[in-house]
Amino acid sequence: MNDSSSSALLTDLYQLTMLQAYRAEHMEGTAVFEFFVRHLSPRRNFLVAAGLEQALGFLENFHLTTPELDWLAATGRFGSEFLRSLRRLRFTGDVHAMPEGTVFFPNESILRVTAPLPQAQLVETRLVNIMHFQTLIASKAVRCTLAAPGKTLVDFGLRRAHGAEAGLLAARACYLAGFSATSNVLAGRRFGIPVSGTMAHSFVEACNSEEEAFLSFARANRDNVVLLIDTYDTESGAAKVVKLAPKLASEGITIRAVRLDSGDLAEHARRVRQILDAGGLGDVQIVASGNLDEYELHRLVQQKCAPIDSFGVGTRVLTSADVPYLDCVYKLQEYAGQPRFKRSEGKATWPGRKQVYRSLDVRGRMAGDAVTLEGDIRPGEPLLEAVMQNGHRLAGPSSLSEIRTRIATQLAQLPEALLSLETSERPYGVLIAEPLQKLTKGL
Amino acid sequence: MNDSSSSALLTDLYQLTMLQAYRAEHMEGTAVFEFFVRHLSPRRNFLVAAGLEQALGFLENFHLTTPELDWLAATGRFGSEFLRSLRRLRFTGDVHAMPEGTVFFPNESILRVTAPLPQAQLVETRLVNIMHFQTLIASKAVRCTLAAPGKTLVDFGLRRAHGAEAGLLAARACYLAGFSATSNVLAGRRFGIPVSGTMAHSFVEACNSEEEAFLSFARANRDNVVLLIDTYDTESGAAKVVKLAPKLASEGITIRAVRLDSGDLAEHARRVRQILDAGGLGDVQIVASGNLDEYELHRLVQQKCAPIDSFGVGTRVLTSADVPYLDCVYKLQEYAGQPRFKRSEGKATWPGRKQVYRSLDVRGRMAGDAVTLEGDIRPGEPLLEAVMQNGHRLAGPSSLSEIRTRIATQLAQLPEALLSLETSERPYGVLIAEPLQKLTKGL
Repeated sequence: MNDSSSSALLTDLYQLTMLQAYRAEHMEGTAVFEFFVRHLSPRRNFLVAAGLEQALGFLENFHLTTPELDWLAATGRFGSEFLRSLRRLRFTGDVHAMPEGTVFFPNESILRVTAPLPQAQLVETRLVNIMHFQTLIASKAVRCTLAAPGKTLVDFGLRRAHGAEAGLLAARACYLAGFSATSNVLAGRRFGIPVSGTMAHSFVEACNSEEEAFLSFARANRDNVVLLIDTYDTESGAAKVVKLAPKLASEGITIRAVRLDSGDLAEHARRVRQILDAGGLGDVQIVASGNLDEYELHRLVQQKCAPIDSFGVGTRVLTSADVPYLDCVYKLQEYAGQPRFKRSEGKATWPGRKQVYRSLDVRGRMAGDAVTLEGDIRPGEPLLEAVMQNGHRLAGPSSLSEIRTRIATQLAQLPEALLSLETSERPYGVLIAEPLQKLTKGL
Repeated sequence: MNDSSSSALLTDLYQLTMLQAYRAEHMEGTAVFEFFVRHLSPRRNFLVAAGLEQALGFLENFHLTTPELDWLAATGRFGSEFLRSLRRLRFTGDVHAMPEGTVFFPNESILRVTAPLPQAQLVETRLVNIMHFQTLIASKAVRCTLAAPGKTLVDFGLRRAHGAEAGLLAARACYLAGFSATSNVLAGRRFGIPVSGTMAHSFVEACNSEEEAFLSFARANRDNVVLLIDTYDTESGAAKVVKLAPKLASEGITIRAVRLDSGDLAEHARRVRQILDAGGLGDVQIVASGNLDEYELHRLVQQKCAPIDSFGVGTRVLTSADVPYLDCVYKLQEYAGQPRFKRSEGKATWPGRKQVYRSLDVRGRMAGDAVTLEGDIRPGEPLLEAVMQNGHRLAGPSSLSEIRTRIATQLAQLPEALLSLETSERPYGVLIAEPLQKLTKGL
């Protein structure tokens, strides 16, 4: 497959047919669109904004190539004057956004695009595609870090993520959320995320014996020996590790960890810990994997006697299996200086350019947010900031470690009630401020 | 973002560390891996194989680039001799597979790779990533076609698909399953899928009035006028369409359809149908969208009086929301002429190179499958065929229409009990044939 992620044709056809009409009507005034989530899904007491870096990259590079334009022309749907206007189309607008890693709630815009209507419209599909997915996964992955505080979490999920880009961006989102590493080599190269890995059952099976497999792997990867011990029988696997350790030590090789991938992980971990400790391998860590998510992590961590040091987390987190999508939208809020909104049943939105203010209580905990119109200055910290002007970024990308710190800080500020893995009975307070209420009623 | 979908680094680190050990041990004999699903998820009575075309494209083009190799070298994890071997690495093996669009069941291998061990191992992660996702979506999308026979289904899901590639490949999978079109322009260009689209609420809101929006859109897109009528009030929207139709007709423009996107779709469709019919617009179709999946389609279609002609299907299908992943694996079955398998608790697999035979009853319905070893010829049709030899395809890609026909034919052959949207109480019979049972016991 050729590259798909950077094509401007990665959009819905209606964006182009609408643009053709905007062009015909000379509707090229300034439009304001905002991206937000309408409702929280069950078992999501808060969300974590992510994906802004990729969204800005998309906007900066937005253009249609000549072959793309030729293809559009060949469809016969578009006039030549309109196609010429597409050739020149770049994103020249402004963007305001919450920094990546900001905790947010329904009705709080996390990204605002201010640009000539055709530009702001055409970027909708891919902007939503980018912002939705990383926000979805970051919001899922922080639940894992909350469920397993102090544990090492590693993303193992590439193979069952929904395609290449999902695997890559989910690795990023998990790392932002506090994971320690990813198995995804490309994510390591692209984003500088630490990569980590063990061995597969196929390796053990291909070798003539489990012992041989352990020795070969350790000798070929001396600095990072993690042995998978459940291919045939977990406890026998652990006993073999104990038997082989002195031999490997004599060659200057230290076994760093063993991995369990099947059965009752807590029970196996206890038995394996005993075997390793009795064999003088108290420093060898235990890595567990297999169908893990925040619920299973919570269960394992609560069983305090389950001596697992590190968890490989995969499919259920990288697909956000319990909540595989968010109810997010990118809506027109203002055009040509007038606030806009729709009244569609169950889908009404708050019009106008908005800002979100967050107040902390005396202990530094989040005490409530207010959504209001941009000009209405309120107490607390404004969460949306200018990040792009006239199509150019106002600052370089945030480093991943900066975003990790922001998330960790904000998790520590969350009200206790929101930390539960279940749906909180005390949702966070988000006030729709009076000026916004008034404007809406007035329309 | 640069291209990610074609990078050979889109893999798990452990593939490379295992390869380093294989290299050190000269383990480069022939390995056989098979891709299959272990268990059916609830509400999936059968699955539909998809993704082979992309899988073969991946294998044909597999290589590591110099910058990728340099980056691997810089990690310090790999020896220079091993890195040199990676530079030369191409996929030179054989592939057997079920043709895309084949209905299949648990324990039936749908793809088999026979290649030198390092090659067969290294391609695992991305092969699973490709085969899993399209199979997941094709299997979800056919449920929609079963739920709404004779209706026009269009994929609208790009924005909330999990990234760029997910949107693109899901459009393909939905089309294979029998959808009529996609809104995804790039999928149209890349795969030749018909593209289709309407208009968004933002268009209506940006215009000074709904009437103006309808007129502008229709004039700019004369050949495909679909008007979204629920931005303010659905029935008033329909009345405006009736009012404007003669004016547009006098300009030579025919309104093809109206779209409903909110509220009780069945109820609105009935009222809108009446308004249109009373206004002499009996030929104007009704398109409905909004949170649709096979369950909702079934509900709407069962209400026979809901006069909806076409459905826009999005997020819930493109994320396979009720079953967002399959329990699929790519397992070593044979190495150096010896069958291999693992015994891990709950994860034991059937060893050896396998073939699947399917029998039909006298009425042409599927009557049962048998999974057996390759050499064991059995009654019925063998489902796996050779598709790649020595790294080269044996035939050009199947056309999408060929695959669509295969799926339609196979759906018509499915036993009645499997057609339910709920979990069937009479699962399809898959016999593990005696030679395979014997081999497994013998190990």
